Amino acid sequence: MTDPTQDLLPEGLEDRLPQSAAAATRIERAMLQAMGAHGYDRVRPPLIEFEQSMSRRMDGVMTRHMFRFTDPASLRTLALRSDMTVQVGRIAATGLCDAPRPLRLCYAGQVARIRGDTLEPRRENLQVGAELIGRDTVEAAGEIVELAIAAVEAAGATGISVDFTLPDLVDTLADGPFPLDGEARKRVRRELDTKDAGGLVEAGGADYLALIHATGEFSSAAEKLSALDTSGVLETRIEGLRRIAKRLNGRARLTLDPSERHGFEYQSWFGFTLYAENVRGELGRGGTYCIGGSDEPATGFSLYPEELVEAMKASEKLGAKLFLPLGHDCPAADALRAEGWRTVAALDESDDAATLGCTHVLDGGAAKAL
Amino acid sequence: MTDPTQDLLPEGLEDRLPQSAAAATRIERAMLQAMGAHGYDRVRPPLIEFEQSMSRRMDGVMTRHMFRFTDPASLRTLALRSDMTVQVGRIAATGLCDAPRPLRLCYAGQVARIRGDTLEPRRENLQVGAELIGRDTVEAAGEIVELAIAAVEAAGATGISVDFTLPDLVDTLADGPFPLDGEARKRVRRELDTKDAGGLVEAGGADYLALIHATGEFSSAAEKLSALDTSGVLETRIEGLRRIAKRLNGRARLTLDPSERHGFEYQSWFGFTLYAENVRGELGRGGTYCIGGSDEPATGFSLYPEELVEAMKASEKLGAKLFLPLGHDCPAADALRAEGWRTVAALDESDDAATLGCTHVLDGGAAKAL
Repeated sequence: MTDPTQDLLPEGLEDRLPQSAAAATRIERAMLQAMGAHGYDRVRPPLIEFEQSMSRRMDGVMTRHMFRFTDPASLRTLALRSDMTVQVGRIAATGLCDAPRPLRLCYAGQVARIRGDTLEPRRENLQVGAELIGRDTVEAAGEIVELAIAAVEAAGATGISVDFTLPDLVDTLADGPFPLDGEARKRVRRELDTKDAGGLVEAGGADYLALIHATGEFSSAAEKLSALDTSGVLETRIEGLRRIAKRLNGRARLTLDPSERHGFEYQSWFGFTLYAENVRGELGRGGTYCIGGSDEPATGFSLYPEELVEAMKASEKLGAKLFLPLGHDCPAADALRAEGWRTVAALDESDDAATLGCTHVLDGGAAKAL
Repeated sequence: MTDPTQDLLPEGLEDRLPQSAAAATRIERAMLQAMGAHGYDRVRPPLIEFEQSMSRRMDGVMTRHMFRFTDPASLRTLALRSDMTVQVGRIAATGLCDAPRPLRLCYAGQVARIRGDTLEPRRENLQVGAELIGRDTVEAAGEIVELAIAAVEAAGATGISVDFTLPDLVDTLADGPFPLDGEARKRVRRELDTKDAGGLVEAGGADYLALIHATGEFSSAAEKLSALDTSGVLETRIEGLRRIAKRLNGRARLTLDPSERHGFEYQSWFGFTLYAENVRGELGRGGTYCIGGSDEPATGFSLYPEELVEAMKASEKLGAKLFLPLGHDCPAADALRAEGWRTVAALDESDDAATLGCTHVLDGGAAKAL
């Protein structure tokens, strides 16, 4: 007897069986189609790169999350990609450095990380995204948020919510009206993350207290944020958010959590998180940033549709199957396939239409329900 | 100044820029569509597995070709997949062990290997394939060859050639009319590989000489092979090949190289290699085999469309782009996207339609050529 555990997959890795694979494929294509329709050209970077090339375009901490190994060809360290945004940034800065700006690129592919976590034990994910390279304006941000919504809606998501954030908010305030030195800045950020009013005051961030309450439904939260901004240092940011919100005009429920930082460490003035009804956790996020290594401004989003696949796979249609008996009419089968039928040909007398999941059988050149 | 070499990709790995990515995406989808239409359900195995789980389903030598690394979660060795056939075999033997047979599965994904070679320096490849699990009969082989042709034709390949082989030919003859012991068998195989008549005689394989000439155009080569088979031990195999050839009926140029072994080490009675006009090297291969670990019979093929992408990328159409001026009519743009237009929206006054690769501009609610 063989050891059944030898067929197990490593923790956090899984096979997609037909229903799940069909959902993932349909969702990936719908998202790529939506991005393509808005002028975003797909690029396909490799699974593996030099660790150094990836790490200099992302924070050092992130490289610790990558699977790494030595390249026998170069004797340098390679890494399995954990994020395709970094790769698209590299492409924009190298192979497409002479392409006109703004440059619109999109991508879809598998990414892996060395450890999962409690909230998200998966170590492999499908990542799908778009990058608008050369611009980080309000107009760019508006296009990107709208496109992210269009992409997830094309994939079948409904009840979309978008949570806005201002990733450089604390820095902007600390450099301006509410001064904080480096150490205090870190402490204030930490207390804002946990929304702990007492801790915030203790950390020397009493001026920042109102930020804790400038959250929730977008227009009222933006009002509160505006009220706090007596110096006007946030005026263009708040105005930018309002213009994006106006542009979205009811397409999504909008909220604001201006001091939300988690996952926005590399964004500049604007960030957003996307949610959909009946989909666990967040569906993706995006914002404005500078491409690591080239410092070109850019705006983009990444979607991680795993939970959307989970939500949709049970009802995913694989297409009705038509059984082709032995000695069937081949041109008739060709014609039915061209119409969209999926055929299953008998290989010998033992093959049975119903057992093989067919709902129809080819009879007299036409599909007949079983 | 930054070091420009830090942006280089490792040897044998490359980015697909828009033309190449569009060709790869179209080709991959066309192949998946053809396989889906013949009743093959897609599965999506993970990028990474336990090395042991992969290696016990493939020859030990092959695992040396895989990128390997230690899993911090299990402390076991993981491998980046170098072949998806092995993974589909595992799925058939585990997650889908209770699914009715014959089981039709297909797949498409990136695979990587640790070293390229002179003929094929790429270390990452797109692999696309189909597996018919539970059967290795002439009918199964016929369906699989026909499907492989349909898949590459759907992807745009023309002038298809199929080269048949009989992977267990030497074993069948050596166990029967032309006995050879283990050592002599190896030597005879080696000399047949190089088609060296003198070497073959020296290796004790004089009986096998005629095999060197039973190659080329299918019907005449099959005649020669049949003439050599006085004991009749190859009769069912030759008859099987003839039935497959008849079934293909002019859809491809057919040749026979009965003792070809390269890449068919794990096939049983039947193997084939696929070529297309204007595509360098082989496009794919397939045959009958036993699934490693479960010993279930199966028939399948793997396509490696990299060179087809190379041949087609220059003429790949990315779709005409329609420029949307500032303050454009959004519902009109939605309608044109729904018709298949790709739009590029102006973000500010500096954006120029022609510079951004647009051939048309939205004017009065309609697409107008620039």
